[in-house]
Amino acid sequence: METAVQGTVPHQPTAYPRTDRTVPTRSADRASYDRELVHSILDEGYLCHLGFVRDGAPVVLPTLYGRVGEVLYLHGSTGSRPLRMAGQTDPGLPVCVTVTHVDGLVLARSAFHHSINYRSVVVHGIAHQVTDPEERRLALDALVDHVVTGRSADSRPANKKELAATAVIRLDLAEVSAKTRTGGAHDEPEDLGLPYWAGVVPLRKGYDAPIANDDLEADIAVPPYLKNA
Amino acid sequence: METAVQGTVPHQPTAYPRTDRTVPTRSADRASYDRELVHSILDEGYLCHLGFVRDGAPVVLPTLYGRVGEVLYLHGSTGSRPLRMAGQTDPGLPVCVTVTHVDGLVLARSAFHHSINYRSVVVHGIAHQVTDPEERRLALDALVDHVVTGRSADSRPANKKELAATAVIRLDLAEVSAKTRTGGAHDEPEDLGLPYWAGVVPLRKGYDAPIANDDLEADIAVPPYLKNA
Repeated sequence: METAVQGTVPHQPTAYPRTDRTVPTRSADRASYDRELVHSILDEGYLCHLGFVRDGAPVVLPTLYGRVGEVLYLHGSTGSRPLRMAGQTDPGLPVCVTVTHVDGLVLARSAFHHSINYRSVVVHGIAHQVTDPEERRLALDALVDHVVTGRSADSRPANKKELAATAVIRLDLAEVSAKTRTGGAHDEPEDLGLPYWAGVVPLRKGYDAPIANDDLEADIAVPPYLKNA
Repeated sequence: METAVQGTVPHQPTAYPRTDRTVPTRSADRASYDRELVHSILDEGYLCHLGFVRDGAPVVLPTLYGRVGEVLYLHGSTGSRPLRMAGQTDPGLPVCVTVTHVDGLVLARSAFHHSINYRSVVVHGIAHQVTDPEERRLALDALVDHVVTGRSADSRPANKKELAATAVIRLDLAEVSAKTRTGGAHDEPEDLGLPYWAGVVPLRKGYDAPIANDDLEADIAVPPYLKNA
């Protein structure tokens, strides 16, 4: 059954198309192209790892990001290397953006089958500098809201000087894959009787209590959106 | 005062040398070349992000690693793309390996000064396949011990078939930098009176209770090295 397209949002298939770059050479059963899974992994992360090529060699830097629909936004100082490169290079800067969550340590009876439970998303594409003022505002709000949902509406918006110092780049979610490992250790049948513990050590998730800034005025309470954090 | 060199371990300066690639274009005050800081960040991580260039475009993949002194070891299937490339390419595969910890969310009164407290290490260099059987054993033990200290001695070592299926690459810690952000929000003086909460939300660290494999024999207890995890 066809779903009616609402408003001006184009119909999106539920999965990203597979490409030569997004189909892994091994553990292909751990790969997924499901749009909702990809979005959920991206929205749970704080930092992505941005890869680009400089003088023929790879560079991988951790940086903040935000997602609006099928677009990732990254930002930085107008002086930062990849952001300048995305502005100067025509037709943009080839990048790979990867977001990974470590969920647990997997201990097997055999050294060989030790592993990590994780969820990752890899995005390939060409990053472009965003120059349209409206899209830049949208992107910067998304970057703040990615840190804490709803926070952009509860802080002072960027002023002209700050906007002038900030470069924003966009990367369309077009060539995308997720990869996940879940569950316990997968030992060889002949190893199941060995006297070694096997299982998963989950990594703790969530937040500790917020720590107010030293210079915060005493009558400003922790906002409700942090109490649920 | 000179420190006597012990045994065959060469004297190591306390800091990595700065290079064009490891001195950032901005926030240079957050950069460090201190060997102990770099080691501590590397040893606390589980996954690194491995960057390499394929057909002129960057690729960034999460993968396990281990450290032995001033060498990082990565491993994977002999069929995996970067590991094959490190074996085939002469004189090796140019890589960038980045390890990042997210420590807290930094909420400022101004959208512009929102940030993340983090610690990261970026390693540039040429990765080489390890073919010497002794060094391969050492590397694979380090990879398992990196997941849980002491675990390689408490699991079945890799057999011939598993060793033949595993490629190991090494990357010397020579061109290395750390970058860290700690502490509260840094707002502009004129924003300090704004009615917005400012401070840090720390991310929870540590582990939840180990989950035994379904197929684990009932008389095998959780090992002591996991009780302290």
